Amino acid sequence: MGKSLVYPKLPRSTLNRYKHRGTYDLGQIHSIVNESAVLHVAFPAGPDDPFPAVLPMIGQMGSFEYPSADINEPLDCYLHGYVSSRIMNLARATNGEGENQGLPVCISAAHVDGLILSLTPNSHSYNYRSAILHGYAQVVTDEGEKHWAMKLVTDGVVENRYNNTRVPPNKVEMASTTILRVRIVDGSGKIRDGGASDEKYDREDKELTSRVWTGVVPVWQVMDEPIPAPENEVEEVPEHIRGFIDKINERNKAYARGAAVAGLPKEEKH
Amino acid sequence: MGKSLVYPKLPRSTLNRYKHRGTYDLGQIHSIVNESAVLHVAFPAGPDDPFPAVLPMIGQMGSFEYPSADINEPLDCYLHGYVSSRIMNLARATNGEGENQGLPVCISAAHVDGLILSLTPNSHSYNYRSAILHGYAQVVTDEGEKHWAMKLVTDGVVENRYNNTRVPPNKVEMASTTILRVRIVDGSGKIRDGGASDEKYDREDKELTSRVWTGVVPVWQVMDEPIPAPENEVEEVPEHIRGFIDKINERNKAYARGAAVAGLPKEEKH
Repeated sequence: MGKSLVYPKLPRSTLNRYKHRGTYDLGQIHSIVNESAVLHVAFPAGPDDPFPAVLPMIGQMGSFEYPSADINEPLDCYLHGYVSSRIMNLARATNGEGENQGLPVCISAAHVDGLILSLTPNSHSYNYRSAILHGYAQVVTDEGEKHWAMKLVTDGVVENRYNNTRVPPNKVEMASTTILRVRIVDGSGKIRDGGASDEKYDREDKELTSRVWTGVVPVWQVMDEPIPAPENEVEEVPEHIRGFIDKINERNKAYARGAAVAGLPKEEKH
Repeated sequence: MGKSLVYPKLPRSTLNRYKHRGTYDLGQIHSIVNESAVLHVAFPAGPDDPFPAVLPMIGQMGSFEYPSADINEPLDCYLHGYVSSRIMNLARATNGEGENQGLPVCISAAHVDGLILSLTPNSHSYNYRSAILHGYAQVVTDEGEKHWAMKLVTDGVVENRYNNTRVPPNKVEMASTTILRVRIVDGSGKIRDGGASDEKYDREDKELTSRVWTGVVPVWQVMDEPIPAPENEVEEVPEHIRGFIDKINERNKAYARGAAVAGLPKEEKH
């Protein structure tokens, strides 16, 4: 991997609290997004509604123009949804030419990696990785790009799943599915790892330290043994599924456990 | 538990797609929110910014006025954050009297309970539970309510943790923490469970069914064995932590596995 690019620090994307936890690194931010099973996508609901709208969606970072672009390079965010959902209708209404055409959206992703249990409620925390992207969403109209994005999104859920199913999608499937391409204009991430931390006056309070347990509870998302459908006719769970589950479970566990002891001298690591 | 109330069906909160998966039930929606380690809170960023803002936050449903209110009854959403963060400053600027005072926010929560692997990419899905709440956020200024909400939010992360730490928070801690109370005006949820489902023409395609594995991969959030801090002086992990971890792990696993076989005749359940 080459050196990662960074997103511009705009007022809306610049972190003011715990700045040392912030990142503007494309690779880190894109990875947080790609590893999220669900993205929370906010958009302006309309002039008569005071509330922004949020939709949980499935998405992946990618570049149709430069398919070989790696995670550290500028990428679009592709989101998948139903043809007549509100976000798709709003995006369709804003399609057009020019730099800032499209529906302005904010994409939010967050992983909880551990519970930080410390001496006082206020020093409790999570280990986490979160990312925010701002960009303009447009409906993908090019057939080739749409097929490419459907594969990108499907394989983002289970690697290599797309080519292990019945493809290409038929006309009905193509018509009922809409893909949004979000051109990213800025982004930021925030990462917290390590153990519990407390103020000196609490750490020196012997009565307190003798009764309050402190430490980290690692947390991750686990995938269980696959349950075949009653109609399933393939006897063994295929390697593209089994291998993927094992890989993700191992990755998630290793990350959460590693985050819990990050910053400790090596010999103290559990 | 009594009969649950329902939220009003407003245009912005009414589901148009897969309506049978929708719920307006206060109890179901509040539970989805309370079981979420992270809530994604969207708010208008300001008149000069085209993008809505989203902040990952920790929160819990509760009623300070009627503390005995159960999960099926009208509750506020309490969110916890840093005193000078943007959302707190915006909420403070909109504080005042009247029905619709406060910062309009949209709160989004989602759990992934399983991967649905079917014959075609388009019929792939998740088992999931998602919830959206709209409401007006105000900064809590009453000292008693603020203490109460800090306990609510802390115990939402680990049951009974608050009283097992050094409390009450001191002046510095009270000053650096801000609590938002969101008065909810509407909400909706969406729940998908069950197995893979495919179109008849795919299910009858023998070549296809003989090569594509279909079924469900249950997914849940797991908490690992606690890792004590190097400074920790309490030898055993206390029961309020250990018991909580066991309970949540059991609950999450049972839900995800149950969702995977929901709707199947009992004798077919795995």
